[in-house]
Amino acid sequence: MILTVTLNAALDVTYDIDALVPHGSHRVSRSSERAGGKGINVARVLSALGAPTAVTGLAGGSTGRALRNGLSAAGLRDELVPMRGESRRTVTVVSREDGDATVFNEPGPHVEMSAWVDFVTRFAELVRDARVVVLSGSLPPGLPSDAYAQLVRLSAGTGATTILDAAGPALLAALGARPTVVKPNAAEIIEATGRDDPAAAAEALRELGARAVVASRGPDGLHAVTPGGTWRAAPPRRLTGNPTGAGDACVAAIAAGLHAGTPWPSILREAVALSAAAVPCPLAGDFDAGVYDQFRSTVSVERTHAPVTH
Amino acid sequence: MILTVTLNAALDVTYDIDALVPHGSHRVSRSSERAGGKGINVARVLSALGAPTAVTGLAGGSTGRALRNGLSAAGLRDELVPMRGESRRTVTVVSREDGDATVFNEPGPHVEMSAWVDFVTRFAELVRDARVVVLSGSLPPGLPSDAYAQLVRLSAGTGATTILDAAGPALLAALGARPTVVKPNAAEIIEATGRDDPAAAAEALRELGARAVVASRGPDGLHAVTPGGTWRAAPPRRLTGNPTGAGDACVAAIAAGLHAGTPWPSILREAVALSAAAVPCPLAGDFDAGVYDQFRSTVSVERTHAPVTH
Repeated sequence: MILTVTLNAALDVTYDIDALVPHGSHRVSRSSERAGGKGINVARVLSALGAPTAVTGLAGGSTGRALRNGLSAAGLRDELVPMRGESRRTVTVVSREDGDATVFNEPGPHVEMSAWVDFVTRFAELVRDARVVVLSGSLPPGLPSDAYAQLVRLSAGTGATTILDAAGPALLAALGARPTVVKPNAAEIIEATGRDDPAAAAEALRELGARAVVASRGPDGLHAVTPGGTWRAAPPRRLTGNPTGAGDACVAAIAAGLHAGTPWPSILREAVALSAAAVPCPLAGDFDAGVYDQFRSTVSVERTHAPVTH
Repeated sequence: MILTVTLNAALDVTYDIDALVPHGSHRVSRSSERAGGKGINVARVLSALGAPTAVTGLAGGSTGRALRNGLSAAGLRDELVPMRGESRRTVTVVSREDGDATVFNEPGPHVEMSAWVDFVTRFAELVRDARVVVLSGSLPPGLPSDAYAQLVRLSAGTGATTILDAAGPALLAALGARPTVVKPNAAEIIEATGRDDPAAAAEALRELGARAVVASRGPDGLHAVTPGGTWRAAPPRRLTGNPTGAGDACVAAIAAGLHAGTPWPSILREAVALSAAAVPCPLAGDFDAGVYDQFRSTVSVERTHAPVTH
């Protein structure tokens, strides 16, 4: 089973408007909502791929109830842990004029220490049945800064593989616990290491503890440094659209591949194809099956270095 | 008692961000919420003035519960009628950079006919104790287009005075029921009558059934046509800020004045002073007591015509 963790889960609300006018008043023609947060988006993709998946994290209040109803509607196994605060929302405003999206992310509730203790207790039970654990997204206020490090260590204790998709202090504080894979994007890698060369930055993250680094290079594909070698994987052509969805689809492909014991070159081919297939979809967690089928046979994967060990 | 009616009540959410970047992703540094909708804002002002007030309208779902908790927190008498849909939200994004606000108004739930019947039944009870009824804002989808006309007739049947602050078809469909006062702003008056001269437009609304018209002219004050005469009321100086709050404060002053039996020139002086005092406040329903005190003795009220009758 693949356990996805979303500590800062959200109810993702989408507002359709005619056109965005800064400092104007807008009539929302349609409002829709669904369960969101990066780990939940990963679980949606995994579920569509037929991989056995469960969703955990924290949820509270009436927004948390709406979020859990959304998981149930999507047929996702809901192992969210209740907390006292109100789950956050994100609001994405989509202009009919140009299809572009403007996003507002609420910070999330201040989580009480008792909720974190409840979560860790439940996670320790769930991880016993997990072969792969996906840790995605920001930490809500109140959680210890090494929250992901604690979860990586608990996972390693039961032999589970960990994939971490986080940024800034949450990423840096987790590296010492030696996550199996970290998946920063170009901006996150510069922020975390101060280097803009993906190869040098990936090596820096490996020196800090990551066993493998899959650095997403946006429309140019992936740069992966693993104990088994270094690869570059690139799509046959560029697509433009929703980068959040592409990152979550990439993580889902890595999780599904590690769960199935697939070799890295094939994992990277799938990851680039699924990322590309997510780009045309406005909602993170969705992908275009036609693009996926077309890209998975045409993605190029090139070994750039022999295996490295440290 | 002054009964304020908000059929499309909302939970007003405010997001503080650094600066609005169209098509960007924004971290919300603070999110706050309170009960809103134009009639509820009017009730807040009335309550601060010490006038006896009750709030009615429709509320449903978890957003409706949050809205009712907000009324209770503000010490407002809650006579909202439950409905099955989920009450709407409005989201106001305030940039720290320039203090400017960008507003997104959800349309509101589709109201079932049974909820409207429940509302009318409760309204008919409440209006027996009301000397003044304030009908404010848009109609949610599903309500009959003559909803305000029905409420104006029920109010007239018990001898209550009615003040209608609505726009477009909701305003036009109510005029035949002869509301005591309508309070359009400059844009609404042009939309409803096709005339941009306030005097000519006010006469057109009176011909359609309004007994009195108080047309707000933004920072220039008010133009009022009543059975007792025609007046122009102007503030001593212009203020810039929140026009929604100014309109609701204006309606509150008219309601308080009609409730107390105050003559029109004094009502208009109060209305201009309260509107001006609302302008510096970012949230509708609030006003600056210092500006109010200063303006209520310096607003000019000038009679422009002798009484007209038709």
